[in-house]
Amino acid sequence: MTATAVVPAADPAGARAQYRAGLVVPSSGWAPGFTQANLVVLPRDWAWDMLLFGQRNPQPVPLLDVTDVGSTRTVLAPDADLRTDLPRYRVWRDGELSDEPTDVSDLWTDDLVAFLIGCSFSFETALLDAGVPVRNIEQVRNVSMYRTNRQCRPAGRLSGPLVVSMRPVPGELVATAVQVTGRMPQVHGAPVHVGSPSALGIGDLSRPDFGDPVEFAEGDIPVFWACGVTPQAALMASRPPFAITHAPGHMFVTDVPDAVYRQP
Amino acid sequence: MTATAVVPAADPAGARAQYRAGLVVPSSGWAPGFTQANLVVLPRDWAWDMLLFGQRNPQPVPLLDVTDVGSTRTVLAPDADLRTDLPRYRVWRDGELSDEPTDVSDLWTDDLVAFLIGCSFSFETALLDAGVPVRNIEQVRNVSMYRTNRQCRPAGRLSGPLVVSMRPVPGELVATAVQVTGRMPQVHGAPVHVGSPSALGIGDLSRPDFGDPVEFAEGDIPVFWACGVTPQAALMASRPPFAITHAPGHMFVTDVPDAVYRQP
Repeated sequence: MTATAVVPAADPAGARAQYRAGLVVPSSGWAPGFTQANLVVLPRDWAWDMLLFGQRNPQPVPLLDVTDVGSTRTVLAPDADLRTDLPRYRVWRDGELSDEPTDVSDLWTDDLVAFLIGCSFSFETALLDAGVPVRNIEQVRNVSMYRTNRQCRPAGRLSGPLVVSMRPVPGELVATAVQVTGRMPQVHGAPVHVGSPSALGIGDLSRPDFGDPVEFAEGDIPVFWACGVTPQAALMASRPPFAITHAPGHMFVTDVPDAVYRQP
Repeated sequence: MTATAVVPAADPAGARAQYRAGLVVPSSGWAPGFTQANLVVLPRDWAWDMLLFGQRNPQPVPLLDVTDVGSTRTVLAPDADLRTDLPRYRVWRDGELSDEPTDVSDLWTDDLVAFLIGCSFSFETALLDAGVPVRNIEQVRNVSMYRTNRQCRPAGRLSGPLVVSMRPVPGELVATAVQVTGRMPQVHGAPVHVGSPSALGIGDLSRPDFGDPVEFAEGDIPVFWACGVTPQAALMASRPPFAITHAPGHMFVTDVPDAVYRQP
């Protein structure tokens, strides 16, 4: 199936049902107002390392739920099946991408643990609600993401660089953007840096490591947030024998309203 | 040594040095303005369960740090030794209290993992700063704590009831107390309940399950917060073969200012 002429479902269960039936589209814009999550699935032997990596690096790896060993269910969407309900997955072997299937039922074993991780889609809605333009949405592009010169705090065998997403924000709205996202610590929280790409070791904003280049408007300042691609970068650096993740932009749509993760 | 005439150290390193030298006193009032933490130490085999229990129950079990397997060090106080620097410990065997030593150097093995958990001492300072009286401090008593009829979300072999602390708050200051503590999610956050002990299955406020009874002033309302004794109750219910915790009120004094855990 192609994405052309597909009308995004307004409700999470409807979105997941279409993905389960085989539709492959980025999940941005689907079930607006409901939280979408990054997925990382690892064998039990590596699960301690990932859980500790999340505890030690809560800005890039905000853990919204961690499943029981072998379970395919999450409290974030009790009726969902994690093996089938994402539009597209990635399969990693020894840290290398080996496949991008739309269903991982045949790969799921009783030995696996799934990690659901907060995603910046939630705070983009909050930014728009507060009158802060989101250039990647305006330009219908994936957000720009960069490896930085900052290392995450290692956990067991897992280590890797902090990955950030960057959004151009009008200078007079940077404070608003900080305040709005600072109230959402479970979806990456306040920016980790404002203004200077070189301070993070980023040489050229027009050449992101992940995602698309995004154009600046006059007066825009680059604002950097911790990014949920960080655990994928750690998997690539640390090379567990087997892992499953979502494919970029093809997230898990939960039943949890974004407002749950918005502090007063 | 006795506590009589001991002047509490103003700085965390000074407090820990006195405890390490053998002083046994409750740590309340020591190194004011610095975060104190609950301690739970478990064999590696049980560490996954406790880490997941914390992830799933962040209000009663806010994990401030989790050590590498076998390490006696924490990022919360890099010069401290977790085996000696608390004023008193508790040793648990098969869920039963077996000893209350002041040093656990002879019990610490390469197989242990330590969990440092946020403590309501941090938010009591914030309440006082905001003009909310803290009756247990006024009355020089330990706070009242109760087992509730709410179960924590289980994690592996660990399960148990939510334990709450209760503070009487003047009705006109309940909103302030909610707002002040709501900005400190890593030290238990906003109250879990206001006003009705019976809704939590608490029959008689004057008979707490842990700590001391605290007197109400005219117009005070009972306010209940998730409590760091919750993991100890889970250990008692779930009976791991071996565990070390702090003794009640004899906390680990960290180098981290309380303000770090206070959100704007």
